[in-house]
Amino acid sequence: MSPAPTTGPPVAVEDVRTVCCVGAGVIGGGWAAYFLAHGYDVVAWDPAPDAAERLAHLVDAAWPALTELGLAEGADRSRLRFEPDLATALADAQFVQESAPEDLELKIKLLADIDAHAPEGVVISSSTSGYGMSEMQGACATPGRTIVGHPFNPPYLIPLVEVVGGTETSPEVVAWTSDFFRHVGKSVITMEREVPGFIANRLQEALWREALHMVAEGEATVEQIDLSITDGPGLRWPIQGPMLTFHLAGGQGGMAHMLDHFGPSLKSPWTRLVAAELTPELRDAVVDGCDREADGRTIDQLVAERDAGVIAVLRALGKA
Amino acid sequence: MSPAPTTGPPVAVEDVRTVCCVGAGVIGGGWAAYFLAHGYDVVAWDPAPDAAERLAHLVDAAWPALTELGLAEGADRSRLRFEPDLATALADAQFVQESAPEDLELKIKLLADIDAHAPEGVVISSSTSGYGMSEMQGACATPGRTIVGHPFNPPYLIPLVEVVGGTETSPEVVAWTSDFFRHVGKSVITMEREVPGFIANRLQEALWREALHMVAEGEATVEQIDLSITDGPGLRWPIQGPMLTFHLAGGQGGMAHMLDHFGPSLKSPWTRLVAAELTPELRDAVVDGCDREADGRTIDQLVAERDAGVIAVLRALGKA
Repeated sequence: MSPAPTTGPPVAVEDVRTVCCVGAGVIGGGWAAYFLAHGYDVVAWDPAPDAAERLAHLVDAAWPALTELGLAEGADRSRLRFEPDLATALADAQFVQESAPEDLELKIKLLADIDAHAPEGVVISSSTSGYGMSEMQGACATPGRTIVGHPFNPPYLIPLVEVVGGTETSPEVVAWTSDFFRHVGKSVITMEREVPGFIANRLQEALWREALHMVAEGEATVEQIDLSITDGPGLRWPIQGPMLTFHLAGGQGGMAHMLDHFGPSLKSPWTRLVAAELTPELRDAVVDGCDREADGRTIDQLVAERDAGVIAVLRALGKA
Repeated sequence: MSPAPTTGPPVAVEDVRTVCCVGAGVIGGGWAAYFLAHGYDVVAWDPAPDAAERLAHLVDAAWPALTELGLAEGADRSRLRFEPDLATALADAQFVQESAPEDLELKIKLLADIDAHAPEGVVISSSTSGYGMSEMQGACATPGRTIVGHPFNPPYLIPLVEVVGGTETSPEVVAWTSDFFRHVGKSVITMEREVPGFIANRLQEALWREALHMVAEGEATVEQIDLSITDGPGLRWPIQGPMLTFHLAGGQGGMAHMLDHFGPSLKSPWTRLVAAELTPELRDAVVDGCDREADGRTIDQLVAERDAGVIAVLRALGKA
């Protein structure tokens, strides 16, 4: 376990009991459901007039799924409290997850407000889809405890959380937040560098923009785009990501053969996104990364794992 | 059933017994395995010196998966014949699937050779990853029967096939090929227009190029990129494609709310791909497409379907 944040009294990740969800829309409500199912007390705040009802609806909608996956001991929906006053909502928080609308000015001000009211040393994590904490923490009195903890919809089911600090975030807070999210069952990527959109959203956003271009140009319909993913590459991606997927597209030669064989396709107009220059350095970085990821597994072993995974997914979804 | 191609004697899709796989690498070999498992006689041709051995290896590697999914009556690996002479290989073909390397000059010449030797009226389908048939059919004597039938790796497991004709492809061949692939159990998208990379590869290629840029710039490692997909959005994509996924990101307001709320993010530097202009026409096309796809299902119903699907996938892959 990492040491607790240095900006206040120590709270070990396993001692957190109360989480405050600031913003209770689809993402904030999903976080609330997740923390409730993991046995936390959750206090939620949201300024929208119908926020409490929408939150109750979201938690109720998520609960059957969470129940099916298994609730933590003592987990109970009644341990959710909606609090109309922000300072009161934050009074008992030992961790804060902010999920306000994606509006930079709003987030800067809201994070400063949270920072003014959250107890000393409590980490303040933002669900922002793409802003760096460096852009958002400037108005905080103690910015060292503010950090991005970016989830995926629905936060109560998708494991990934991307953790990345801003220039003023303390390294201890980066370590503590990564530990905390792992402790509550998340799959954590701790980023070394702030990148707009982080990692998964950059990839997802490139795909989404290409799709919008295709609809705009009459090249494909919405339905064709979705079917092309759900019955195509989307079946591989829960098992092996885009890099390892292409490692297997090269046959026994793996990524090295794939880049040598399909490398010229990077010049093809297969997307509106101009390709990276396939320098020897980039080629080696990708090949070496795949080798590290394969971690001694042969191409045949990876093919067998992929096939078993795709079959399991096809069966699980009734597509086999 | 569509009428058979007009350029030769009629062969109903259900009467096809013998398939010729021209090119027997990862994709061609995968096709061979698929057709064998579905009870076809398969003749394979490939000019590489070790092609027969590599093909046998590929079919053996795929067979356990195909057996687990259920073989067609009479399906047998012994019904694969490797034939070193192209004309001989094509003599009995009732359907041809070409899966040669992604080299335009090579494909133009090879398709002309196939066209010269394949029996009259037999459809010639290309696995090309991105060339339009209009670019490739020019040297064929009877180009009307040439068409793109683009699979995904591995062709023996991933259902999607994108079918699209060139300017000289007959409409009957487009219909026949779509019917044939559906008859053998594939999920078919019949495209109205030739687009380089078709649909799924354009989406996948945008993601891949963004990933390469990120590695080149030191923004993410190969392992982080893969984990960001396998534990993140990749878990949703076998269930709901990128459009329907974002339909649910808008809460009860669906895609309309999502575009109004996140639309400004299209101006954010979340990918290197410049966004489409979000005109009212594009907005309406996307919203209307999602409504057609939802087909009367409410947001709550779609959320429940997605959640059930994600849980099934997590469990199937041992991630729950």
